[in-house]
Amino acid sequence: MTTAQLVQEIKKKKSFLCIGLDVDLNKIPKHLIEAEDPIFEFNKAIIDATHHLCVAYKPNTAFYEAYGIKGWQSLEKTINYINNNHPEIFTIADAKRGDIGNTSSMYAKAFFEDLAFDSVTVAPYMGQDSVEPFLAFTNKHTILLALTSNQGAFDFQTKTIDGKEVYKQVLETSKQWKNAEQLMYVVGATKAEYLADIRKIIPDSFLLVPGVGAQGGNLQDVCKYGMNNNVGLLINSSRGIIYASNDTDFAQAAARKSQELQEEMRSILELI
Amino acid sequence: MTTAQLVQEIKKKKSFLCIGLDVDLNKIPKHLIEAEDPIFEFNKAIIDATHHLCVAYKPNTAFYEAYGIKGWQSLEKTINYINNNHPEIFTIADAKRGDIGNTSSMYAKAFFEDLAFDSVTVAPYMGQDSVEPFLAFTNKHTILLALTSNQGAFDFQTKTIDGKEVYKQVLETSKQWKNAEQLMYVVGATKAEYLADIRKIIPDSFLLVPGVGAQGGNLQDVCKYGMNNNVGLLINSSRGIIYASNDTDFAQAAARKSQELQEEMRSILELI
Repeated sequence: MTTAQLVQEIKKKKSFLCIGLDVDLNKIPKHLIEAEDPIFEFNKAIIDATHHLCVAYKPNTAFYEAYGIKGWQSLEKTINYINNNHPEIFTIADAKRGDIGNTSSMYAKAFFEDLAFDSVTVAPYMGQDSVEPFLAFTNKHTILLALTSNQGAFDFQTKTIDGKEVYKQVLETSKQWKNAEQLMYVVGATKAEYLADIRKIIPDSFLLVPGVGAQGGNLQDVCKYGMNNNVGLLINSSRGIIYASNDTDFAQAAARKSQELQEEMRSILELI
Repeated sequence: MTTAQLVQEIKKKKSFLCIGLDVDLNKIPKHLIEAEDPIFEFNKAIIDATHHLCVAYKPNTAFYEAYGIKGWQSLEKTINYINNNHPEIFTIADAKRGDIGNTSSMYAKAFFEDLAFDSVTVAPYMGQDSVEPFLAFTNKHTILLALTSNQGAFDFQTKTIDGKEVYKQVLETSKQWKNAEQLMYVVGATKAEYLADIRKIIPDSFLLVPGVGAQGGNLQDVCKYGMNNNVGLLINSSRGIIYASNDTDFAQAAARKSQELQEEMRSILELI
């Protein structure tokens, strides 16, 4: 999916919501546990109930790997279900990978070819040659970690190199890499006030913003400082939506939560 | 496996060799491709031929994920084969994971519980709360990326924060984390001259050293600057060993290459 197609979907649905599919078997409704593939059944119900309210789904690979081969099967069924039924939805493998060049190529193959995701999140620590194998897939998107939503972001990301914070060095450096127009960035909603500075460095890139909801980030603030002419934001909510109820009405509850966020997004979009 | 047990194995085998099981179907001998699980058959033959010459095996997860569910099955069979037949061997999931706390817990569960690895490699970019869920498994080891073997290491890792390189900040900061005695570090062999400084910060920790062989690092230099009283080194070679031949004699060729390295290690160990 091209960036232009994503922007078109955002405008059509009046939503820039991304739903995080981080399925923990200890948190899903008890009646699903008996199913042959409870994780996929849970995701399918969430997708059926919310696909008209969001523009992206983001399974976090950790929650699938934790269940081994069965988990990887659930992930494959989930991405195939989205691609077959809702090809207009942007898909993100939240995998935070990154390794030396020949190894990153194998990760890119895993998420862009074997599982046909539109994008994958990548960690920047190993530098240019660890990221460019992902960018070589020019019909896909690479979402680089810049400033994350957790407390540990202050351990290294906000420290200064030559008077400039590490996450800003990541932005400045990466935007010069080959196929950098395929880059998007992770910027946590819990640090909305940093977004004005970030937009000075990368005015045009899409930002994937986690941390709204369970982690405490505020949507209005993120939009105030982070929105650009193309909207330029994907706001992720995971636990706040998918665990809105842990009873048989979980999918309807997820839809209600999604709609609350979509309506808030619609009013923001109508103002610009 | 405890660090003391690992040191004992190193002294018994007179080897601190780690063999990287990074299996690319395009590079393995043609006669294996017809097997039901070519990756596992390849690994099994390599393990059968080399287990007496090395103290660790390190499958890189990218090479398994690239083949989807079948790849994950090959990984599971490989770790089970090592654990069942050679429980004295230290196992490393080279996965370079790291995410917010609840997500890192799922990755730890994936590699320490579902697949019973002794250790996993972890990226430091997201800080303390992204690493501590791995360290919470106090009978396991967490191997943190410090200074990697690739060119991209110079993009961020060697830049200075307050007069100190990022990778040294990672060492200094992480050694204060909870259960830090379970930490090991990745330090590339291609930067052997950095090891003297690194040993001033973490004199006792084990270092996993990739980059000997295909990437050009030198074993003598690494040992000169990096060895401590407990040896404190695991030297990894992947492509140089497992692809020593791509014919039916691949396992014997891998054993010969392993033995060359083991003999070099034995002479170094006899000198200390």
